[in-house]
Amino acid sequence: MRTAQRAQLALLLEVAGTPKPGNVDRCREYPELRFEHFLAGAVGAYDGLADAAHGEPIGMAFETAVGGMSDQDGGNTQFGALLLLVPLVRAASLNRLSTAGVTDVVTGTTVQDAVSFFRAFDYVAVSVNPPPEELADLDVRQGSAAAPAVVDRGVSLYDVMELSADGDGVAREWVTGFSRSFEAAERILAGDGSVPTRASRAFLQVLAAEPDTFIETQHDAETARDASARAQAVLDGEGSADDLAEVFVANGINPGTSADLVAAGLYIALEHGLRV
Amino acid sequence: MRTAQRAQLALLLEVAGTPKPGNVDRCREYPELRFEHFLAGAVGAYDGLADAAHGEPIGMAFETAVGGMSDQDGGNTQFGALLLLVPLVRAASLNRLSTAGVTDVVTGTTVQDAVSFFRAFDYVAVSVNPPPEELADLDVRQGSAAAPAVVDRGVSLYDVMELSADGDGVAREWVTGFSRSFEAAERILAGDGSVPTRASRAFLQVLAAEPDTFIETQHDAETARDASARAQAVLDGEGSADDLAEVFVANGINPGTSADLVAAGLYIALEHGLRV
Repeated sequence: MRTAQRAQLALLLEVAGTPKPGNVDRCREYPELRFEHFLAGAVGAYDGLADAAHGEPIGMAFETAVGGMSDQDGGNTQFGALLLLVPLVRAASLNRLSTAGVTDVVTGTTVQDAVSFFRAFDYVAVSVNPPPEELADLDVRQGSAAAPAVVDRGVSLYDVMELSADGDGVAREWVTGFSRSFEAAERILAGDGSVPTRASRAFLQVLAAEPDTFIETQHDAETARDASARAQAVLDGEGSADDLAEVFVANGINPGTSADLVAAGLYIALEHGLRV
Repeated sequence: MRTAQRAQLALLLEVAGTPKPGNVDRCREYPELRFEHFLAGAVGAYDGLADAAHGEPIGMAFETAVGGMSDQDGGNTQFGALLLLVPLVRAASLNRLSTAGVTDVVTGTTVQDAVSFFRAFDYVAVSVNPPPEELADLDVRQGSAAAPAVVDRGVSLYDVMELSADGDGVAREWVTGFSRSFEAAERILAGDGSVPTRASRAFLQVLAAEPDTFIETQHDAETARDASARAQAVLDGEGSADDLAEVFVANGINPGTSADLVAAGLYIALEHGLRV
């Protein structure tokens, strides 16, 4: 299996893990965002992942991946996961799948990569925070319309991630050496049972460790902290993950960033020898 | 989405359909043959499907698909489905996805295609019937060791399928214009609800319509007839598909050929505009 195929498989294994309280998984879905949308998203994302492995610019590979991912009717399925996977795949293709290796990849991104990144928002509605007032012209929700401002300000894709790192756990990975992704991989490799079972467990650990920024964006900081506390309670044996899943789905609490980190962790684990 | 991607998605949607009594699906699996093995199988099969779309010889594309599919620890996941998909993908790539079109593809196969087909058995153990005594040298279970006999007898891949058509519902598709695959596609297109729901329904219809040859091979003709009668009963409102799934799994009754036909039907339906 090639690097890009492992990344595609990681996307599929992530959504196959169950229970992953609040996320779409094999047994739970939302009426408009269903399991099959994630399958189609993973199929469509492949070309962009392959581009990343073949040395295409990171931004362009990401845009291609998101464009392919969007060829289904569920909307945003794996935008955040791809934002982690694309630089990780590049690092792996250079035999440098490490904190230092992927940091070199992301710090090497350019203004053109940033423009491609903004274009990716044209494909799909992504739930993100508005930027601070003084950076309103860099609001990613404008999509490609922000390109002139990106060029004008001369910000690289790494710069864009740095600006978003406070409120976005995926962007934060870019500026912290993908530490949580590598940590998730170690937990998955050290875990017991089938890969989806390990993914489910890793998901609870990732969610418990830090408030999920996707929940913060969709609800508020307190809701996100509460969700992490509930995940920790399940890990401590107080209550079941299945019950927590029911509560989260009923309240629209979707720890999407934690799922993105698990996808990245699964990919790294596959590169490090995890077998399916 | 390209033709080969639709075929990959069909493999994923097939295993996502639930309940599919007796088959691995999102909610049911066997201890050694699990959902994630089918995910990895679909990832690995892609190159062979792309080869089929790009005009590589049918046998070689199939061998590549099976080789990629086998890069997981569950064993045979989608051998039969790929034997249907590869010629269908070729026909679609020629804008001839019809009974006549795919028949031209399969009748055009050569001795070299047959040799590749036999080589595909080296990758994975496939449950098949032994051939009649006088064709013992063409027993597919020999894998590539049968290549000299294939060449000596000058049999094309189509000839091999013709020899197996009596006892193998996949081979029978090759010699009957893929009629059941096209029929499954029509049912899926005409169905209601999400694609996995349609796949689950189509599976029962396919199984009810004709005894499953994989059950015949693993058990006997009576068991296969009984399984079809039970599927019909569910369609008639007598008993639930979920209950039937429990019975089949408990008794190791795996209607694998019916699942292969549903995968082929899903692919054709996707080519004909089915959206996910």
